[in-house]
Amino acid sequence: MTGITTLNDFRRALDALPGPDAAAVQAARARDAVLTKPPGSLGRLEALAEWLAGWRGRVAADRLQVAVFAGNHGIAARGVSAFPAEVTVQMVANFQGGGAAINQLSALAGAAMSVHPLALDRPTADFTAGPAMTEADLIAALQTGWKAVDPEADLFVAGEMGIANTTSAAAIAAALFGGSGWAGRGTGVDDAGLARKEAAVAAGLAAHAGHLDDPVEVLRRLGGREIAAMTGAYLAARMHRVPVVLDGFISCAAAAVLHKARPGALDHCIAGHLSAEGAHGRLLAAIGKEPLLSLGMRLGEGSGAALALGVVRGAVACHRGMATFAEAGVSGG
Amino acid sequence: MTGITTLNDFRRALDALPGPDAAAVQAARARDAVLTKPPGSLGRLEALAEWLAGWRGRVAADRLQVAVFAGNHGIAARGVSAFPAEVTVQMVANFQGGGAAINQLSALAGAAMSVHPLALDRPTADFTAGPAMTEADLIAALQTGWKAVDPEADLFVAGEMGIANTTSAAAIAAALFGGSGWAGRGTGVDDAGLARKEAAVAAGLAAHAGHLDDPVEVLRRLGGREIAAMTGAYLAARMHRVPVVLDGFISCAAAAVLHKARPGALDHCIAGHLSAEGAHGRLLAAIGKEPLLSLGMRLGEGSGAALALGVVRGAVACHRGMATFAEAGVSGG
Repeated sequence: MTGITTLNDFRRALDALPGPDAAAVQAARARDAVLTKPPGSLGRLEALAEWLAGWRGRVAADRLQVAVFAGNHGIAARGVSAFPAEVTVQMVANFQGGGAAINQLSALAGAAMSVHPLALDRPTADFTAGPAMTEADLIAALQTGWKAVDPEADLFVAGEMGIANTTSAAAIAAALFGGSGWAGRGTGVDDAGLARKEAAVAAGLAAHAGHLDDPVEVLRRLGGREIAAMTGAYLAARMHRVPVVLDGFISCAAAAVLHKARPGALDHCIAGHLSAEGAHGRLLAAIGKEPLLSLGMRLGEGSGAALALGVVRGAVACHRGMATFAEAGVSGG
Repeated sequence: MTGITTLNDFRRALDALPGPDAAAVQAARARDAVLTKPPGSLGRLEALAEWLAGWRGRVAADRLQVAVFAGNHGIAARGVSAFPAEVTVQMVANFQGGGAAINQLSALAGAAMSVHPLALDRPTADFTAGPAMTEADLIAALQTGWKAVDPEADLFVAGEMGIANTTSAAAIAAALFGGSGWAGRGTGVDDAGLARKEAAVAAGLAAHAGHLDDPVEVLRRLGGREIAAMTGAYLAARMHRVPVVLDGFISCAAAAVLHKARPGALDHCIAGHLSAEGAHGRLLAAIGKEPLLSLGMRLGEGSGAALALGVVRGAVACHRGMATFAEAGVSGG
């Protein structure tokens, strides 16, 4: 399939998710067992090698991709961010100019980075008053994400920028998994700002009550363009069998839409890090992911996932480069 | 000073530990505050940049060094390892041939790696019967470590290889910090092997009772050459103001000798990772360090620390490469 031009395309992809290559997993496991180290001594690096083998058919990290999506949010008018809405477009220029954290971390990982602003001059609607996006808006955003994925990438990271988007992500998480307390301090709101975020999430859920059983409707009504683009990208990555490293709270909210729509839809994804955004750990638990890093980061942009690429590259380097017991003449355990 | 040719040299260095450069720390903090991100949003990466600034006078990770020390242990004869003692020399050949995990992880980090076998044909004495090392043995090992450190390195990692050395490290930890349960499964001993390790540690402490108040004597009586070399290297790094990333249980036992001898002696060190070796978390707490990574690794060789170099490099890349709010024309928070 060539992407998402209708919501049926989206649903059809969910009905046709490819699974991992069991033979490639087995081959990776067999090689791991004869490498010059005690069994299990590389910990999660061993599991990472098997995971990569399952999706790519080989253990490789030669071609890495970081795609950063940006959108503006009507909900920003409700005072839910520590930064003004014009920062979204300013930061897109910073991404394009190479000056943001994600530029440095992508370059360090050797990843190709692309920037995808989504209709920044047309913020989504305030979701406490109505749906954030029309169906056409949603489809366009999903398709932007889908098309951004390099089908030949060995690893894919999506990042985001969008003033007020932790509020949108919190509303999505609340709608998908229930409960309260999903709002956090985002870029650094004070107690009053946090209270406004919690109120916005509650108002959004109330405004769309009765329409939130379908995860796709949750995304359309409470999401944002950059969040929907990430959802589309993660689905495209699955269809292309490209392994994904998830980033923080917003990235995981975008991914959770797929998880809720189809159990196992995130089997091609790992969690790059645990963000300092309050409810990220709870969201990771809801989608069944254990983070690779926990460094108190809460920047977004894909920064935590891009940093975690170094761990995955370490797993690949060991799996591919190490000698076997026989090759090195080392006595096995 | 040119190294350690007497134990007085060692003690004199401990009396003359240089401290961090407060002005450089302040300059790094000031730059961090104007980079295009919300304050604090890079979490521990921000603290890493300040720490590097304090020891090097600048935030840099251009010249990275990994030194791997290897030694043989008399205590190996007591059945405390899952691998035979000849594996030490075999793995040294593997390091020299480029086939071990630490070779791959050093290369990935862009670190220069050196290998330092220490009198592998002369194992230390069984510490349950007498001191592991003579004073001359100890001084030679400390000096090997001292000399291995590149005074111009921006970051230093020490790794180790030595069949039975988790037993020696457990005995050191028990002697320095008291209590029992410091022995762990190392390369993968079964319950009977673990019981033999615990018994060896207890017998070692009993054999040297009354001589374990001085951390240097703890190192001489219960340690090993590669462990003493790491202790010497960490002290040399401090004198050269070279920041250190500690590795796992054995690395931290070597470092703990300095910590016990002089509070603050490890201020130039960070913990690269939390090993799966049972008591490593307890040892990190005893020396007051919070690990950067926690990936279930337990290989030694410096592997966890070398992987953590990627995180430190990420901190440096962001600190140096990011645009300021003014440069990028981004509205501050």
